[in-house]
Amino acid sequence: MLRFTLHAHDGAARAGEVATEHGVFETPAFMPVGTLAAVKGLLPAQLREAGAQIVLGNALHLAWRPGEKRVEQLGGLQKFSGWNGPMLTDSGGFQIFSLPGLRKISEDGAEFASPVDGAVRMFTPESVVDLECALGADIIMPLDHLKELPCPRTELVDAVDRSIRWAERAIIRKEQLNRPDVNLFGIVQGGTDLELRGRSAEGTCRLPFAGFALGGFSVGEATESMHAGIAFSAPLLPADKPRYLMGMGTPLDLLHAVSCGMDMFDCTLPTRNGRNAMAFTSSGTLRLRNARFADDPAPLDPNCSCYACRTCSRAYLRHLFLAREMNAAILTSLHNVSFYLGLMAQSRDAIRAGRFAAFRISFERAYGRPADETDGPDEQS
Amino acid sequence: MLRFTLHAHDGAARAGEVATEHGVFETPAFMPVGTLAAVKGLLPAQLREAGAQIVLGNALHLAWRPGEKRVEQLGGLQKFSGWNGPMLTDSGGFQIFSLPGLRKISEDGAEFASPVDGAVRMFTPESVVDLECALGADIIMPLDHLKELPCPRTELVDAVDRSIRWAERAIIRKEQLNRPDVNLFGIVQGGTDLELRGRSAEGTCRLPFAGFALGGFSVGEATESMHAGIAFSAPLLPADKPRYLMGMGTPLDLLHAVSCGMDMFDCTLPTRNGRNAMAFTSSGTLRLRNARFADDPAPLDPNCSCYACRTCSRAYLRHLFLAREMNAAILTSLHNVSFYLGLMAQSRDAIRAGRFAAFRISFERAYGRPADETDGPDEQS
Repeated sequence: MLRFTLHAHDGAARAGEVATEHGVFETPAFMPVGTLAAVKGLLPAQLREAGAQIVLGNALHLAWRPGEKRVEQLGGLQKFSGWNGPMLTDSGGFQIFSLPGLRKISEDGAEFASPVDGAVRMFTPESVVDLECALGADIIMPLDHLKELPCPRTELVDAVDRSIRWAERAIIRKEQLNRPDVNLFGIVQGGTDLELRGRSAEGTCRLPFAGFALGGFSVGEATESMHAGIAFSAPLLPADKPRYLMGMGTPLDLLHAVSCGMDMFDCTLPTRNGRNAMAFTSSGTLRLRNARFADDPAPLDPNCSCYACRTCSRAYLRHLFLAREMNAAILTSLHNVSFYLGLMAQSRDAIRAGRFAAFRISFERAYGRPADETDGPDEQS
Repeated sequence: MLRFTLHAHDGAARAGEVATEHGVFETPAFMPVGTLAAVKGLLPAQLREAGAQIVLGNALHLAWRPGEKRVEQLGGLQKFSGWNGPMLTDSGGFQIFSLPGLRKISEDGAEFASPVDGAVRMFTPESVVDLECALGADIIMPLDHLKELPCPRTELVDAVDRSIRWAERAIIRKEQLNRPDVNLFGIVQGGTDLELRGRSAEGTCRLPFAGFALGGFSVGEATESMHAGIAFSAPLLPADKPRYLMGMGTPLDLLHAVSCGMDMFDCTLPTRNGRNAMAFTSSGTLRLRNARFADDPAPLDPNCSCYACRTCSRAYLRHLFLAREMNAAILTSLHNVSFYLGLMAQSRDAIRAGRFAAFRISFERAYGRPADETDGPDEQS
C-alpha cells in the first residue's frame, strides 16, 4: 500500500515522497510518458540517469497491444518494460476524448474499436480496474468521462456526475481484488467551471482513494482559465494524499501547479517536442532546425548537465535533425526529459528551503514568455 | 602517428592494438558505422558500454552535410560527434559504386551531385585527403575506384590501375599537409580476380601507407568467391601494418577474415538489421516480428550481457516492433552491435590463447547456417 510522506511546505507548495511496492519517488514528481511501455527514444537506464523516479503507461493502449494478460504473464509492466521502478497507468478516460476509435459511451462504459485490429471491446469502470491490476502498475487511474472544451454545461454536468458514479464502481471493484500493491486514485473533472469542479471534488474525495488527480485540463481552454481552474481545484483535494495533475503542461504550467500544491505530473511535451526539434532550456525554447544554430558550439542549455549537454553542440543536433538521423530525436528528448525532471528537483529543493516563490520568479524571468511550445505533430498518449 | 603492436599470432590470425591520437583500439576490431557522425540509434556512451573502441564516419556524406569546414571549426569529427575516441573516415570510393548522384568519373576524380542540394562537386584524390584531414579522423581512406561485380575484366583492370594512380596522388597530398595525427591507409581492389588482386597489392603496398585495406568485396559476388578472395589477398598486405576489410560482413564472414589475418572491420548490418527487427545471436539470427516470440520471456541471446539482454524479453521487443516504437530499433541495434563487438573480443581472447580455430568451429556450430542476414531496406553507408 502506497505511503505518502510530506517533508516540507512552502505556501501551498509541498515536497514529499511516495513509497510504492516498486520503490520510492519524490514529489513534486514528473513522470515521463511511456504510453506503450516505452518512453519514445529513451531507455530505462537513460531515464534513471536523467533523474526519473516513476514512469507512466497507458492501460487502454496496452490492452490493445500487447494485451494485459501477456504483460501479466511476463511479470507485469515494470519487468516487461525494463523499468524496475514505480509506474502509473492512465485509464482510457483521455482516449474517450482523444481517440477516433470510440464507438459508444453509455452508463455502462465506453466501447472502442481497437486501433490495432478493429476489434470492438467494451471498457467499463470494473474492467478497466481489472486490466490495470493485470498490468500491475503501482498507481492506477479509474475510467472517467472527459469532455473537450468548450462544451455545453449540461453535457459537462452529465460527464462529471457519470465520472463520480464510475469512480464508485471502480472503488468497489478494486476492493474485490486482493491487490494491495496497486493503488487507485480518484479523478476530479469539471473543465473550467469552478462550481462543477467543486461538485466533482465533493463526490470524488469522499471515496477511499489512495490519491487524487485533476483531469480535464489542457483540453482546449485558455491558459488563464486553466491556471485559475488549477488554483481553485488543488485545495479541494485532500492534503494528506498525493495530488496528480494529469497530462500537462509547459514548464510554466508545472511551476504554477506546484505553487498550488500539486505533487505529480505527466506530459508528452518533452519527448514529442524533442522529436520535433524543439528543446526546452532555462532561457526558453530553441528550434533546432533554425539556421542560426548551424555553427553554434554551445550545448542546448549551458546550465544543464544531462548527457546531451555534456557531449553535443547545438550545431551537431541541428545537423542530425537536417540529416533525419534518429539520434537527433533521442538526444533532444533526453535533454528535454532531463530538463523537466531537473525543474522538479529544483522545485523540491526550493520548497524544502522555503524559497519556492523566489525560485519560480527567477525561473520565469530567465525562461521568458511562453511561446509556441505545444505545436508539432500529435503524439498518441 | 599511428602505432601498431601485435601481441599474439594464431595461425594467420593475429591480435594486437593500434594507438592513435585519440586513443587505442584493440584488434581484431569492429567499427560501428556512423556515416553522418552518428551511429543510428546509439549514443557514444552506449557504444562505449557495448565495447566499441573506434567508430567510422563517411567523408563524402559529411562533406555534403554538415560540411567539413563546419566540423573542423567545431573541433573535428571526434568532438563534433561526441565520440571522443579513435575514428576512421571512408573516402567516397564506395559511393562511386553505390550512390545515384555520381555524374562523371575521369582520371582527375569523381564528380557527384550532392544528395542534399544537388550542387555538383568534384572529388579528386587530393581534395578527398584535404576534406578528410579537415574532418580530422585518426585513420583516413584515399579515393579509390570501386566496381560492382560482375564486371568486364578490362573495366576492372582500369579501375585497379586508376586506384593505384589515385593512391600515389593521395600519398603525395598527404605528405604536403602537416597532419601527423591523421593516418592514411591504402586500398587493394580487384574484385574476385586473384591476378588483379595481386597486381593491385603490388602497386599499393609499395607506397608508404600507415595501413592497408581490402576494398571491393561484398559487392555482388558469391560468398565462396569472396572468402577465397580474402584468403588470397590478406597475406599480400604487409604483416607489420593494420589490415582492414572494408564494409562487410556477417559474423561468419568476419571470423573467416580474422582467420586470414585481417584486423579491422566495419559493417552496417548490426544497425540496419537492428532497425529491421533482426537480431544476431550465438545460435543464429532471430526475426523479431515472428509470432513465436509473442510470449517469449527469454532475452535475445541468453549468452549476451548487453543492456538489451539484461533488461528486455523477446516478447517486449516484438511488442515494440509491432507498435512501431523507436526503442525497438534502438534496443536491437544495441544488442547487435554488442554482439559484433563481443565476437571480436572473443576472437582476441582466443587468438591470445592459441585456440582461435577451435573457437571459430564452436561458434559456427552454434550459429548454424548463414541465412538471409543481409536483406531489409538498404542503409546509406
